[in-house]
Amino acid sequence: MTAPAPKPKESLQETLQQVVRILNRHKLVESLVHKQEMPRHDLVETIVHKQNLAELESRLGQLHPADIAFVLESLPLEDRLTAWSLVKPEFEGDVLLEVSDTVRETLLADMDRAEILAAAEHLDTDELADLAPDLPQDVMSELIGSLEEEERAELQSALSYADDQVGSLMDFDMVTIRDDVTLEVVLRYLRRFEELPNHTDKLFVVDNDQRIKGVLPIKKLLITDPELEVAAVMAHEVVMFRPDEDAGEAAQAFERYDLVSAPVVDSTNKVIGRLTVDMMVDVIREEGDAEMLSLGGLKEDEDLFSSVWRSARNRWPWLAVNICTAFIASRVIGVFEGTIQHLVALAALMPIVSGIGGNTGTQTVTLVVRGLALGQINQASARRLIIKEHAIALLNGCVWGGVLGVIAALLYRDLPLGVVMTAAMVLNLQVAALVGLLVPLTMEKLGRDPAYGSSVFLTAATDSMGFLIFLGLATIFLL
Amino acid sequence: MTAPAPKPKESLQETLQQVVRILNRHKLVESLVHKQEMPRHDLVETIVHKQNLAELESRLGQLHPADIAFVLESLPLEDRLTAWSLVKPEFEGDVLLEVSDTVRETLLADMDRAEILAAAEHLDTDELADLAPDLPQDVMSELIGSLEEEERAELQSALSYADDQVGSLMDFDMVTIRDDVTLEVVLRYLRRFEELPNHTDKLFVVDNDQRIKGVLPIKKLLITDPELEVAAVMAHEVVMFRPDEDAGEAAQAFERYDLVSAPVVDSTNKVIGRLTVDMMVDVIREEGDAEMLSLGGLKEDEDLFSSVWRSARNRWPWLAVNICTAFIASRVIGVFEGTIQHLVALAALMPIVSGIGGNTGTQTVTLVVRGLALGQINQASARRLIIKEHAIALLNGCVWGGVLGVIAALLYRDLPLGVVMTAAMVLNLQVAALVGLLVPLTMEKLGRDPAYGSSVFLTAATDSMGFLIFLGLATIFLL
Repeated sequence: MTAPAPKPKESLQETLQQVVRILNRHKLVESLVHKQEMPRHDLVETIVHKQNLAELESRLGQLHPADIAFVLESLPLEDRLTAWSLVKPEFEGDVLLEVSDTVRETLLADMDRAEILAAAEHLDTDELADLAPDLPQDVMSELIGSLEEEERAELQSALSYADDQVGSLMDFDMVTIRDDVTLEVVLRYLRRFEELPNHTDKLFVVDNDQRIKGVLPIKKLLITDPELEVAAVMAHEVVMFRPDEDAGEAAQAFERYDLVSAPVVDSTNKVIGRLTVDMMVDVIREEGDAEMLSLGGLKEDEDLFSSVWRSARNRWPWLAVNICTAFIASRVIGVFEGTIQHLVALAALMPIVSGIGGNTGTQTVTLVVRGLALGQINQASARRLIIKEHAIALLNGCVWGGVLGVIAALLYRDLPLGVVMTAAMVLNLQVAALVGLLVPLTMEKLGRDPAYGSSVFLTAATDSMGFLIFLGLATIFLL
Repeated sequence: MTAPAPKPKESLQETLQQVVRILNRHKLVESLVHKQEMPRHDLVETIVHKQNLAELESRLGQLHPADIAFVLESLPLEDRLTAWSLVKPEFEGDVLLEVSDTVRETLLADMDRAEILAAAEHLDTDELADLAPDLPQDVMSELIGSLEEEERAELQSALSYADDQVGSLMDFDMVTIRDDVTLEVVLRYLRRFEELPNHTDKLFVVDNDQRIKGVLPIKKLLITDPELEVAAVMAHEVVMFRPDEDAGEAAQAFERYDLVSAPVVDSTNKVIGRLTVDMMVDVIREEGDAEMLSLGGLKEDEDLFSSVWRSARNRWPWLAVNICTAFIASRVIGVFEGTIQHLVALAALMPIVSGIGGNTGTQTVTLVVRGLALGQINQASARRLIIKEHAIALLNGCVWGGVLGVIAALLYRDLPLGVVMTAAMVLNLQVAALVGLLVPLTMEKLGRDPAYGSSVFLTAATDSMGFLIFLGLATIFLL
């Protein structure tokens, strides 16, 4: 069984439109039947109905599993399940692997035990391991029971690692060779394979105990005199990974050294699996997404079509924290109500002080989060960075705070008010720089995701401190 | 010339530490000489000095160019240039390709014409094209002059495409074959190469006019009977790209179909270049970074060690816009100063209304930007999305607005105030949802980056409208 070839990209959106059109026709027929406006034309209805579904099935049948996944992700729930029921069983496993986690849940929820087992049949153990967290417990047990011993061991090994560890991403499909044979022998050996594993750009050279001794790049194998021995041709310096390493760091190594595949070895250098660039690309994409989502205060990837209730819950944790910090900032203002009553201009000016603080602080947070992700911030550079960010904050405070101070003084014809405004800006930007630096750096030191929550802490600080500094200075100097 | 093998990742940070230590020793000696505290020990100083530099040079000599790039990016400017002067000339070109744009500028600024020309000598035309925008005009002309005709044509072709087009990322190094020969002939042909291009996972099968007819995957070539003809073995369905296509979309295709390399063809299907996964990985990383940076209001990638002045300028455009919008919001409050004077509690409560609006709107913006990047938002789904986001906003407004209304009513013993608070929250969250959806969707329609600026427009709307709605309702119902 080979999957249909990928569609040229231009036509993917077009295909999606066609699928949507067929689905709309299908729903129209259904709704007519439902309203019983076609009671006597059962036969016609049934034929039209069947034609629609058959057309949809044939369209989907021409798609690469990754394209089916894209179409399913772009459809609302009801349509998605109609389309899903028409996907060929032998592609169902691949499609499940390609869709996002939230969409996968909706698809699995629609499948019964037998369907899931049938879909899983076509998958490798490392792919099964990817699906495992979303499968019902009893289906999983039955699946494990149906595997051969070696596969079961592989599956259990893959399942024993966390999502962000190399071990959870490795596959077990690879070609190993000995170093005391000639390339001719290797070429003959390869010809006995029915298929080589995907992304095989190098063969792993191992000793009798499966310990890695080197790698033989395919491009070397192809250009070298076949009479030579593997030992004479192989590369000894191998970029390899351990299963408990961080997947993000492995992805950075793939990126830095332009790797296509690399061996995963245990503590005795025994080859236990393989990493390939396609998995690493997913890691890079997911890390970027996760950073962006967590800076935006979203817990997880949202299915664009998941229910209002579910989406709202995804957004609530952050919102709740934000309401608390907004409430605290509000109480800070509450303390100064007397001052504001005296000089109501303060009420109009205070959001500027807090807002600009939040804005500059967010810029600092963004750069620090990025620098940490790229591993460019170490102890020595952190000190420099702190000095630099405070210097920028001082510059910004003087320049923009000065401008706003002049405007405030002119607007309210009140020079001291302008001076207080400028002073408050200078001080609050220092707060923003400090918090913008310390929060992500501290989160990182505590082993947490430096992006998540940084923005909440930052806004809490720049709001509350902004109001406190501005209204405090005003109380002291203007009343 | 082959570059040293990549370092195992664990030791990269360690290497960096060692380099920093040597550089610190070096600077100590320099400063002692400078202060003339070692006037008579010239000889000793010179020896120590030379030893330090020699040690540093040998350390750098053991590093893969990508690792040298990492070390240089992690060093402050002065140290960076000291280290840069010790990098072997034959690796300088590769290092320049690996470092970020801003760091590259600092390195090139330190090189004279001859050095740049020497570094460029070791690069392919597609790599030269990557460096071109940063090279001085006269150096570039001289370089172009020194190329052979074919290379010059390639370089000019690569330079004719924008940064985000496939054409600017393709390389020209590839293996093409005819379909009427046997695999045996292909294998013999390959053996005549001194080296195969990196990431050669398939050979491009072309006709006499270089038009693509199919591809022969290396893994097929290795397992198939060598007596067979290419035509019988090759794959006819080829994922290929045009040079004017969007690089981001090509990267998504690489990701979706797990590609390692793919041909780039012109309008007559003539093969003119090749895309490889390593370039696509960079595109994916850069797109994620750019989205994150532009959501954070930063124009470009910042060198962590660039000058305060330069960094400040990078952040000013956004800051300036933000100050304008903050000022407008402030003027909205100014209009209601009379109301606030009457009921000063409003001053304390209004930042909550605007703040929560900004927060929920940012969540919407983040999801829409992401959905657009993944191509999952189309006309039909956009309508659904708008309904859904408004429903979530209504839910959030009622729930959280209700909670805050009760708190406000209890705190100030003023039931109408609580009701106004809740009503303002409900309305402002609708504004947040609307703006959070429309701004990125409109930016996308106008062909702009949907992330850039979305956040400014959003905050402008949620602040100004939040104050207007809350203070307006209060003026009408509470005075």
